[in-house]
Amino acid sequence: MTSPALTHWVLTIVCEDQPGIVHAISGAILAANGNITEAHQYTSHDTGRFFMRLQVESAVPREFFENQLLPVTQRYSMDWNLDVVGRKVKTLVLVSKSGHCLNDLLFRQRAGQLPIEIPAVMGNHSDLGEMAQFYSVPFEEHKISSDADKKAFEDRLRTFIAEEKIELVVLARYMQILSEEFCKEFEGRIINIHHSFLPGFKGANPYAQAHSRGVKLIGATAHFVTADLDEGPIIEQNVVRVEHSDSKNRLVSIGQDVESKTLTQAVRWFAESRVLLDGARTVIFN
Amino acid sequence: MTSPALTHWVLTIVCEDQPGIVHAISGAILAANGNITEAHQYTSHDTGRFFMRLQVESAVPREFFENQLLPVTQRYSMDWNLDVVGRKVKTLVLVSKSGHCLNDLLFRQRAGQLPIEIPAVMGNHSDLGEMAQFYSVPFEEHKISSDADKKAFEDRLRTFIAEEKIELVVLARYMQILSEEFCKEFEGRIINIHHSFLPGFKGANPYAQAHSRGVKLIGATAHFVTADLDEGPIIEQNVVRVEHSDSKNRLVSIGQDVESKTLTQAVRWFAESRVLLDGARTVIFN
Amino acid sequence: MTSPALTHWVLTIVCEDQPGIVHAISGAILAANGNITEAHQYTSHDTGRFFMRLQVESAVPREFFENQLLPVTQRYSMDWNLDVVGRKVKTLVLVSKSGHCLNDLLFRQRAGQLPIEIPAVMGNHSDLGEMAQFYSVPFEEHKISSDADKKAFEDRLRTFIAEEKIELVVLARYMQILSEEFCKEFEGRIINIHHSFLPGFKGANPYAQAHSRGVKLIGATAHFVTADLDEGPIIEQNVVRVEHSDSKNRLVSIGQDVESKTLTQAVRWFAESRVLLDGARTVIFN
Amino acid sequence: MTSPALTHWVLTIVCEDQPGIVHAISGAILAANGNITEAHQYTSHDTGRFFMRLQVESAVPREFFENQLLPVTQRYSMDWNLDVVGRKVKTLVLVSKSGHCLNDLLFRQRAGQLPIEIPAVMGNHSDLGEMAQFYSVPFEEHKISSDADKKAFEDRLRTFIAEEKIELVVLARYMQILSEEFCKEFEGRIINIHHSFLPGFKGANPYAQAHSRGVKLIGATAHFVTADLDEGPIIEQNVVRVEHSDSKNRLVSIGQDVESKTLTQAVRWFAESRVLLDGARTVIFN
Repeated sequence: MTSPALTHWVLTIVCEDQPGIVHAISGAILAANGNITEAHQYTSHDTGRFFMRLQVESAVPREFFENQLLPVTQRYSMDWNLDVVGRKVKTLVLVSKSGHCLNDLLFRQRAGQLPIEIPAVMGNHSDLGEMAQFYSVPFEEHKISSDADKKAFEDRLRTFIAEEKIELVVLARYMQILSEEFCKEFEGRIINIHHSFLPGFKGANPYAQAHSRGVKLIGATAHFVTADLDEGPIIEQNVVRVEHSDSKNRLVSIGQDVESKTLTQAVRWFAESRVLLDGARTVIFN
Repeated sequence: MTSPALTHWVLTIVCEDQPGIVHAISGAILAANGNITEAHQYTSHDTGRFFMRLQVESAVPREFFENQLLPVTQRYSMDWNLDVVGRKVKTLVLVSKSGHCLNDLLFRQRAGQLPIEIPAVMGNHSDLGEMAQFYSVPFEEHKISSDADKKAFEDRLRTFIAEEKIELVVLARYMQILSEEFCKEFEGRIINIHHSFLPGFKGANPYAQAHSRGVKLIGATAHFVTADLDEGPIIEQNVVRVEHSDSKNRLVSIGQDVESKTLTQAVRWFAESRVLLDGARTVIFN
Repeated sequence: MTSPALTHWVLTIVCEDQPGIVHAISGAILAANGNITEAHQYTSHDTGRFFMRLQVESAVPREFFENQLLPVTQRYSMDWNLDVVGRKVKTLVLVSKSGHCLNDLLFRQRAGQLPIEIPAVMGNHSDLGEMAQFYSVPFEEHKISSDADKKAFEDRLRTFIAEEKIELVVLARYMQILSEEFCKEFEGRIINIHHSFLPGFKGANPYAQAHSRGVKLIGATAHFVTADLDEGPIIEQNVVRVEHSDSKNRLVSIGQDVESKTLTQAVRWFAESRVLLDGARTVIFN
Repeated sequence: MTSPALTHWVLTIVCEDQPGIVHAISGAILAANGNITEAHQYTSHDTGRFFMRLQVESAVPREFFENQLLPVTQRYSMDWNLDVVGRKVKTLVLVSKSGHCLNDLLFRQRAGQLPIEIPAVMGNHSDLGEMAQFYSVPFEEHKISSDADKKAFEDRLRTFIAEEKIELVVLARYMQILSEEFCKEFEGRIINIHHSFLPGFKGANPYAQAHSRGVKLIGATAHFVTADLDEGPIIEQNVVRVEHSDSKNRLVSIGQDVESKTLTQAVRWFAESRVLLDGARTVIFN
């Protein structure tokens, strides 16, 4: 008789902080013959919330594991999620014309470095169709030139998300604004990337502004999309040094590199269940 | 008979860009038996200005060197400066209570790593007097609790700057605002340091705001002081990575490190004649 | 009746990995009315060892807390340590002539940013006596010009470490080699800093070698001292970018900055019980 | 009548340092109605060599420009090169199985961010043929399982380099060693990328060694290939921070990112004539 195969689980928990949580959870894991291989926890002084991410090796079936967890998660009113480590998260990517972020996501996904599955890329321009095709990913073009177009597109998104069980929508330099309603509906499931400067610049043509002010660092911020444009909880940020002699075009090119790197990192953490929400902040368990 | 000693000169030039500048200047240097050991130049597309910084070894006396340069600088209407490499720039440091920036400046200056001479430290509190004293630098306390105090202090500054031939005023976490008049009078000669975040935060208690937004990078900007508070030409910027678990106090401590490092770098570049102004931007020849 | 004051404890544990550890420990903490405020754990695939660091708030006396922990620590044959968060670790600093590392340690310790207490600085030269004095730290000069000198000095160290209950010895650019015997005696309690390059250079005058090879990054490594010189477990590393035009002296100056920053970071982590040993590696819970 | 079009030239010069070089060269440029838009120079204290890179706008034909330069370049025995800014450098890429470096080169080349043209990719495995094909670049597989294979392949390289006027050969994780003879023949024209650690590790499986030693930084070095394997002049280096919990596989993935970034940067600088050789060092004019 062979012993049953080990599964590598990832368990995330959020609840109000109180004594005994770790003891109770670790007891349930013990009862499931689980071995904790990775653990992170954090208590927010701001919100009084407790956050935990565990990786657990266990040979019991999912149902048995869940049955051990249920009494604990109910007693402490936990938001919780049990998943399999490395499971590919179903991800829809929205794009416009710039391919640097999409290329990075597709290349790494195929190279096995990013645990996501991309059932489709959708764009408001056709430019990146060929790139999607190379990676054998269906591409849909949805031109947006009116409010009706936008509404129709968001309806298409809703249908696709439901049918394909999409877990994450990535705005990979998608230059359109999603409706407030849509953003609320999928809060915590849409990740956007935008450039960031020290100090910040408002308004159009930020690279031109950054150039004219002579900034020495340019960067990018990956964040959850909320109804407030560019103001959602930050997931990851990076900067790169620039010089007075860097032209505006060079700033744009440097900015693109830091954008794709930052977005890919944020998507990886999300797909690995490493990103939890603490009010307006994220807790990153990496 | 011994040969005359070589002097190592630093020559900076700013003028309108036009053909022949380099040829003319290098001809004057050749006529002064000078050997160019380091050279930087830059033409600003924004302002059409030409910027140059040269280091030149020559054994001729200063007057002879200047006589070779004069016809060229006049023909091209150059702003120019001829200095000796490594000469210590007379620097006045203003402080309040925080010592991290002052400590870094004093330690490096004494260690011979920063070509400045500090004839005095002045503060609106007495806290850092002892630190100045350890480095044998006179300390003056000037409390500012009224407009009259501020006016009196700025008059004291003017007198001291004139008498001591102060070339640079460093605001090393000096928490008072200098008058618009004073800032204009010494434009391009006052360097300030302030914290910087991605994205930027307005208003009081920025570290608290940064914490509540969950920023992943905090930084500092060293800039020239203009009448617009915190809006002068940027000289140097740095950032450091922080995490969700870093407390507000830890953010402050990390912020202090990046502040002192950034300010010292900006002061070094200024003292080495590596910072030139191109409108609202700096040209850094490092 | 007032409630007893909360103490903020830090508990570190190392033992063989096995199921039930977290449950058992968290049970003991619960029995001590403790609340876990920070937790890190790690299981080494290389050695099969389990590592944990907890911060716990509890109002019970130490003895009561320990009594709850003892049965667990015995059952699992744990190496463990219970300390108070923020307690100042007694640290002896050894120096030679270079003051950059000592200055950083003393300044931050006085600024309250580094939880150490420095009962003495000892050097094989008198150069840094004045700096120690400024910070009111006793300084001892111990010239080492013979094997007998070294033996006498190490005996003095042993006596001082015993009498003053020194927990950490920091080699802050101490340019002498401690005896193999001494290193073994205090393994895991001596931290050294040395420069590091990509690629590494053996032999004398590494900055000259790095310059002649044209390296683009220079760095520093803080590590525990073992009998193998410069080969102990790495605690922290940093690098800084350099250019072809940086002179050897500039490389040295840049190297000093990265050395002091790296050493201070390593000392902070040690003092906060964040450094655990896993064979030839360190586990850093930061 | 229209005025002749401006050409943007890049001129690089290497010669023995002596007075008058800049004056002479700038005179020749003036005679060609040239306007210097970017200039870098450096004098090596180690070798006494003078290095210069100029960008010059001029409307005269190449022959006329060269005729102005010739007397100067002859008088000072200069190695020099005159090229057009942005001209695409003919680049042959050699690969094995890993695609991360090739993908980065091809994507950026097509995006117009890298001034190279790739007439072919050649590999000792067929794995990356499809990637080359997507970018419409011919792919040749040359299996190397004997000395005769290697000799045949190097002969094929020689022919291809001659016929296609290849200026640069990039080893984008090409896991074969080129013969000493071949390396000498194309010295200064072959760029390789290899991983780098602090401290360095010799021998097989360096990521495993780095993991077992617990390094905190892993990096990559792009360098010219010389007959000494991995010991040629360094062009660019980068590092990334890693942690005790990063598995060997994660180290490999992080290492790949830093490798592709570093190699692409080195290739860009080469293609822009920004890399000059100073004995065993490079001068990078960026």
